[in-house]
Amino acid sequence: MAVGPPPGDPEALETRLSRVDGQAGELSIGGFRVEDMAPQATFEEAAFLLWHGRPPDLEEMGALRGRLADARGLPQGTRNVLEAAAATRLSVMDALRLGVDSLALSGAGEPVDVGMAERLVGVVPALISTYWRLTQGKEPLTAPGNLGSAEAYLHLLTGLRPSSAAVRGLETYLNTVIDHGLNASTYTARVIASTHSDMLSSVVGALGALKGPLHGGAPGPAIDMVFEVLERSRASSRSLEAETESWVREKVEAGGRIMGFGHRVYKVRDPRADVLGAAAESLYLGSPNEAFYRQAQAVERVTLDVLEELKPGRNLRTNVEFYTALVLHGVGLPAELFTPTFAVSRVAGWTAHILEQRQHGRLVRPLERYVGDVGRRWEPLQDRTG
Amino acid sequence: MAVGPPPGDPEALETRLSRVDGQAGELSIGGFRVEDMAPQATFEEAAFLLWHGRPPDLEEMGALRGRLADARGLPQGTRNVLEAAAATRLSVMDALRLGVDSLALSGAGEPVDVGMAERLVGVVPALISTYWRLTQGKEPLTAPGNLGSAEAYLHLLTGLRPSSAAVRGLETYLNTVIDHGLNASTYTARVIASTHSDMLSSVVGALGALKGPLHGGAPGPAIDMVFEVLERSRASSRSLEAETESWVREKVEAGGRIMGFGHRVYKVRDPRADVLGAAAESLYLGSPNEAFYRQAQAVERVTLDVLEELKPGRNLRTNVEFYTALVLHGVGLPAELFTPTFAVSRVAGWTAHILEQRQHGRLVRPLERYVGDVGRRWEPLQDRTG
Repeated sequence: MAVGPPPGDPEALETRLSRVDGQAGELSIGGFRVEDMAPQATFEEAAFLLWHGRPPDLEEMGALRGRLADARGLPQGTRNVLEAAAATRLSVMDALRLGVDSLALSGAGEPVDVGMAERLVGVVPALISTYWRLTQGKEPLTAPGNLGSAEAYLHLLTGLRPSSAAVRGLETYLNTVIDHGLNASTYTARVIASTHSDMLSSVVGALGALKGPLHGGAPGPAIDMVFEVLERSRASSRSLEAETESWVREKVEAGGRIMGFGHRVYKVRDPRADVLGAAAESLYLGSPNEAFYRQAQAVERVTLDVLEELKPGRNLRTNVEFYTALVLHGVGLPAELFTPTFAVSRVAGWTAHILEQRQHGRLVRPLERYVGDVGRRWEPLQDRTG
Repeated sequence: MAVGPPPGDPEALETRLSRVDGQAGELSIGGFRVEDMAPQATFEEAAFLLWHGRPPDLEEMGALRGRLADARGLPQGTRNVLEAAAATRLSVMDALRLGVDSLALSGAGEPVDVGMAERLVGVVPALISTYWRLTQGKEPLTAPGNLGSAEAYLHLLTGLRPSSAAVRGLETYLNTVIDHGLNASTYTARVIASTHSDMLSSVVGALGALKGPLHGGAPGPAIDMVFEVLERSRASSRSLEAETESWVREKVEAGGRIMGFGHRVYKVRDPRADVLGAAAESLYLGSPNEAFYRQAQAVERVTLDVLEELKPGRNLRTNVEFYTALVLHGVGLPAELFTPTFAVSRVAGWTAHILEQRQHGRLVRPLERYVGDVGRRWEPLQDRTG
């Protein structure tokens, strides 16, 4: 990965939003360790923390929930765009990017302020769930106005009131991934904001980056691996452990990457993996899906052993994507919605970074290194030979 | 402006597309000095040069023109979106961003190749001209398939066959601004592409950045200044020179920036300003608008004198935005289309950078500097006071 200016570089972008310490394996969000904040806070509290630098009080929290609920109502122009998208089977991420973009049709394009940030955070779960139901041939739903974002999102997808365990699991996930330094989508949002463009343009750009498989695209494949190994074990009557071992060996020997293991930034531990691992345990233990959880743990254990043997000293550990997949599967989300659900959370981080960029930042204009030709002379087309 | 890694930094993004030497006041595009290439090449040749690293031969040129012409036909889904945008009076840049985004509805979202780059470069003039005519209450037009992009763009806007001088002026402009290192929109496109997202997502992000007034927004204000001073001179019966002088003094004393003068990167000269200054001269001299050109030159001369007096040693020179405004006004474009016309050209540069990023680049993930709180402890909401 291309690494920009070092932390001590006076030209590095400054942030008060999250602190990523890859060497120590630590992450803090708004000054709170992710292990402390994520399992306790509601998603609204975490978003407020990023926008305002402190958690809300009870009154602020109630008002924010109301505004987020209001933002779930989709304008007709956006509904039309989502229907056209569903008719052409657009991917959920493409539909989400286009759906957010289409909010410009209802005059949402201009302000760069917390109100616009709230509108965007409120609308994303509604866009995803509306689009998802349209692609399933189901009528989109509305959710009761007194629900928080996480509960409303699950309700809008299924029409059913989710369990409190599912809501807690989803909120812990949303809080854990709400911000993570200058990852590619957040950086995209800041570069766009640095031109004094509008917040909608920044978020649309960030969604385009999150869509990329090197960024937001791995939780789906991480759980697909578990399903694939389970299926092979069922078909072959070999043990899950034996199937996992041969699956990982084949993949690594073919030069493939095992999704869900290893991280570019965190070398010793990924604190988010610990938080989400604990969230997965709370969600599955004693639930009807406990057997699946035990199987996934077996796959994880064997994968780590084989990776240690095949890539000794690399210290490849289970990463946030593996546990994300477990948690999101556990709260009932299909794999197609894993990356869009990442966006449900990260849009809060993006908007906080956009506000920070506008308050403190300057136009981003990195220097490049030219490695091409010099001193060519232009010849008229008719004198040129192919 | 925040400046990223220095040119010798091994982590700086590498490019073969353009070489910006701000100290020497030089710009080369695909290895050709801008002064050499821009006034001679057609826009199709310049785009081909960026995509393929060399100019096309006659046969390649004919084939490319045909494909760009084909790409001008807008899919129905995109036409519907533009009509909805016109009904809500969206700005042209917002409509262009949303219009490009809506191409995903016709399955344009996935490939990252020269064919997709051609589709995007072909479609942008059609999107702008269709939208512009819709906002004017006029029926959108089609252009003869044998026209190049620049001529087709002018034809699509007006329905009239443009003069060869206007086409040459516009092509020289498009070639001059086709690429310029890692400016904010190009960098946005590369950061998005670095996640292995699709080309459409990258270009949509770049359009969002170009919209920002610190990036693509200045040619309009540069010519507005000329019109404003002309109007004041007419109303007051004072000389144009006297009105310019008081206008500039008032503006500078109020802390305002004079658009069209000074550049962040080029300190000694902006080679693009020279190319466009010469293009403006060819376009206006002997034309019915020669008087306007002389007046604009007088405004420029007085502005430079006053700036030298008020900001001595800053060496503020006429920049590319001032001459852009003269050239684009001279070819008949309204000021609302100046930034969108920048996009007609720059989309070729963006797509070339996206291709380059995918061939050689790695995930962009700059390091940030954390300047916020540490060690806070989360308290439950009910224990918190506002």
